[in-house]
Amino acid sequence: MRMVDVIQKKRDGETLSEEEIRFFINGYTDGTISDYQASAFLMAIYFSDMNAEEQGYLTMAMVNSGDQIDLSAIEGIKVDKHSTGGVGDTTTLILAPLVAACGVPVAKMSGRGLGHTGGTLDKLEAIEGFHIEISESEFVKQVNDLKLAVIGQSGNLTPADKKLYALRDVTATVDSIPLIASSIMSKKIAAGADAIVLDVKTGDGAFMKTTEDAEALAQSMVAIGKEVGRNTMAVISDMSQPLGYAIGNALEVKEAIDTLNGNGPEDLTELCLVLGSEMLIAGEKAKDTKDARKQLNAVIKDGSALELFAKFLEAQGGNPEIVKNPELLPKAAYQIEVKSTTTGFITKMEADEIGVAAMLLGAGRATKEDDIDLAVGIVLKKKIGDAVKSGETIAVVHSNTENILQTERLLLKHIHISQHAPKRPKLIYKVMK
Amino acid sequence: MRMVDVIQKKRDGETLSEEEIRFFINGYTDGTISDYQASAFLMAIYFSDMNAEEQGYLTMAMVNSGDQIDLSAIEGIKVDKHSTGGVGDTTTLILAPLVAACGVPVAKMSGRGLGHTGGTLDKLEAIEGFHIEISESEFVKQVNDLKLAVIGQSGNLTPADKKLYALRDVTATVDSIPLIASSIMSKKIAAGADAIVLDVKTGDGAFMKTTEDAEALAQSMVAIGKEVGRNTMAVISDMSQPLGYAIGNALEVKEAIDTLNGNGPEDLTELCLVLGSEMLIAGEKAKDTKDARKQLNAVIKDGSALELFAKFLEAQGGNPEIVKNPELLPKAAYQIEVKSTTTGFITKMEADEIGVAAMLLGAGRATKEDDIDLAVGIVLKKKIGDAVKSGETIAVVHSNTENILQTERLLLKHIHISQHAPKRPKLIYKVMK
Repeated sequence: MRMVDVIQKKRDGETLSEEEIRFFINGYTDGTISDYQASAFLMAIYFSDMNAEEQGYLTMAMVNSGDQIDLSAIEGIKVDKHSTGGVGDTTTLILAPLVAACGVPVAKMSGRGLGHTGGTLDKLEAIEGFHIEISESEFVKQVNDLKLAVIGQSGNLTPADKKLYALRDVTATVDSIPLIASSIMSKKIAAGADAIVLDVKTGDGAFMKTTEDAEALAQSMVAIGKEVGRNTMAVISDMSQPLGYAIGNALEVKEAIDTLNGNGPEDLTELCLVLGSEMLIAGEKAKDTKDARKQLNAVIKDGSALELFAKFLEAQGGNPEIVKNPELLPKAAYQIEVKSTTTGFITKMEADEIGVAAMLLGAGRATKEDDIDLAVGIVLKKKIGDAVKSGETIAVVHSNTENILQTERLLLKHIHISQHAPKRPKLIYKVMK
Repeated sequence: MRMVDVIQKKRDGETLSEEEIRFFINGYTDGTISDYQASAFLMAIYFSDMNAEEQGYLTMAMVNSGDQIDLSAIEGIKVDKHSTGGVGDTTTLILAPLVAACGVPVAKMSGRGLGHTGGTLDKLEAIEGFHIEISESEFVKQVNDLKLAVIGQSGNLTPADKKLYALRDVTATVDSIPLIASSIMSKKIAAGADAIVLDVKTGDGAFMKTTEDAEALAQSMVAIGKEVGRNTMAVISDMSQPLGYAIGNALEVKEAIDTLNGNGPEDLTELCLVLGSEMLIAGEKAKDTKDARKQLNAVIKDGSALELFAKFLEAQGGNPEIVKNPELLPKAAYQIEVKSTTTGFITKMEADEIGVAAMLLGAGRATKEDDIDLAVGIVLKKKIGDAVKSGETIAVVHSNTENILQTERLLLKHIHISQHAPKRPKLIYKVMK
């Protein structure tokens, strides 16, 4: 088989066989297929697309290109959740104890993220003493005992995906749905997921700016799941404004605790109930959405979700007291109110720009080497559709420097206020399975 | 400027600026832009196309990537001719003395070719003593004196094109019209052409299999010519069967001499008159086609074209006697007749397969290192539409080995005979300017 023929076949819109896709992934991983053939192939995929079967082959070829986590020693159906990423997205911190409290085992592998704030791991590290350096056997035991554990990334998972991603980044082949879908799915499957619940964000602050694109991506991933025998469902959710109110690591941990207490922001709570329901159904702990929501609400109400969160933190060296006393979390030196200069209604909150404002404070990383300031961030006081008066606080900036001029300017510029009340954005666009 | 942005712009179907195209060609030539970005870009061009302006910029950027031949010391308009290549195409050997005899200066740079037979240079080397190792000043002087000289390729012409061509070959981006068109045009312009006459072949034995593709390529090249100020015209001619009767180096030289004598095959003669007319018009030696054909026929009839050919050979060390006595050309040890096994009409002569049959005898090169046998080849005795009887000779194989089984089998397989007389193929499809 020659790679040039495989490229030409895809270029000409033909369907590739499993053998041809494996030939590419194996050859590219071991270096016998060059970057320049790979990039031409990726661009051909960008234009010619791939059907569900091809995407399934691509996903599994990437899974098989490296190590795979074996979670078979953990009882029950291992349901993993993935979000395509947004601003102020604290769902993992809430969902993990929530569904674990309902009996779904959560065996999470977590890494550090690039972006407006840190990843789940960074957020958890805002809790004093918490660590993820546990052995694989401790990890398995903890999930069997508590139903929840988080471990750092280990092993050489999906090296083909890592190598391809780096190439896509410099060859304008990032935004190809079959490539995005197979990349996400391969990572989840290599990490040992039996079933996958996807939160595909749409809007300004999301990678997929339009609902159509988000749906197409979700559809591709659900189809891949079917192809490769991993029960997969996707929720299309709004990211036209930040989720919840908090943007920042410790600030989001506090918001997660509030939500587990039943006092979280309405949108964040609802999204967790929707995603959590899918996880319970996938984990065969609930028969339908109604049953699932009932169980999820029950473990919030009786405090068992929060209690499980505390136990989990304690098991991994963290201070469980923070769930009762979030004031123990890292705190920024300054809390500065940003006030509206006009009266009207919030019509638009550009999530990505507000994310940049949080990043400027030190809440996120632009490169892997950047340090993160766990204490800083932004707490919004308003959401789209809310009325606001001139002089009223629209956001509180948590900063370790007194001068927040740039952050304030970004917030005032990208939180739009007008005289007419807008329609509040829909939170959930669609559930696909 | 970042190459990834240029790739994305083309991927998204936008028009690139001169600056962006130059940035790519200069960066790729000097190695600051990688092969993997270049190949993704080429595939994006394959799908998104380029308009005439972009193709003009690409052509001139490639011209400027290396040395350029300065032919300004040669009097008159330097008209170069290019053929996209076919089987049995001896036109250059005929056209050069033909138009030179009418006063158009022919300053030809020639290289060795890969393919069914050698290039023009290989064919000329079938003439004892002929060489192209002449200095640039001798070259210029000879063109001014005789109107005709051929020099070997020197200098570093269009290095960007060479590097890109090698990359296209392994990334399934060869058959992209803007890339083919700019590659051809850049080489002609770098070699000093003021005006360009293109012979774009169409049919089985051509790179462009359909008339539509051939027209599209011709149209692109004529448009590039307009963009970059080089008067360019294109003739779409048939390559559904070999041109003329001879396929092989010395055999084609003999056929060229026959044609210059007025005794050439009808199709080869007519194509030379059509291309030659365009060259005379472009060289401002004829006012229209009628005038041009009259002049061309005159220099054939009075023997001055053939005489000029002899003088040219002599000036470059070759034996001028061969024009009177073609028997002096290299001769193969065996001349074996291939006979028809049925009676009927020739309906199809698959040019590319007949070319392969000649190559098997040693007439052509598959790789640069291959030796060429100047004496061997095939002389067809029939063309499409001709009647043939069982047992009648359809081709004579000139071979240096007695066993020609493989060649014979190919000829009998790919020269189709049926009971019904077919329509003879049209020779000239279109002249575009």
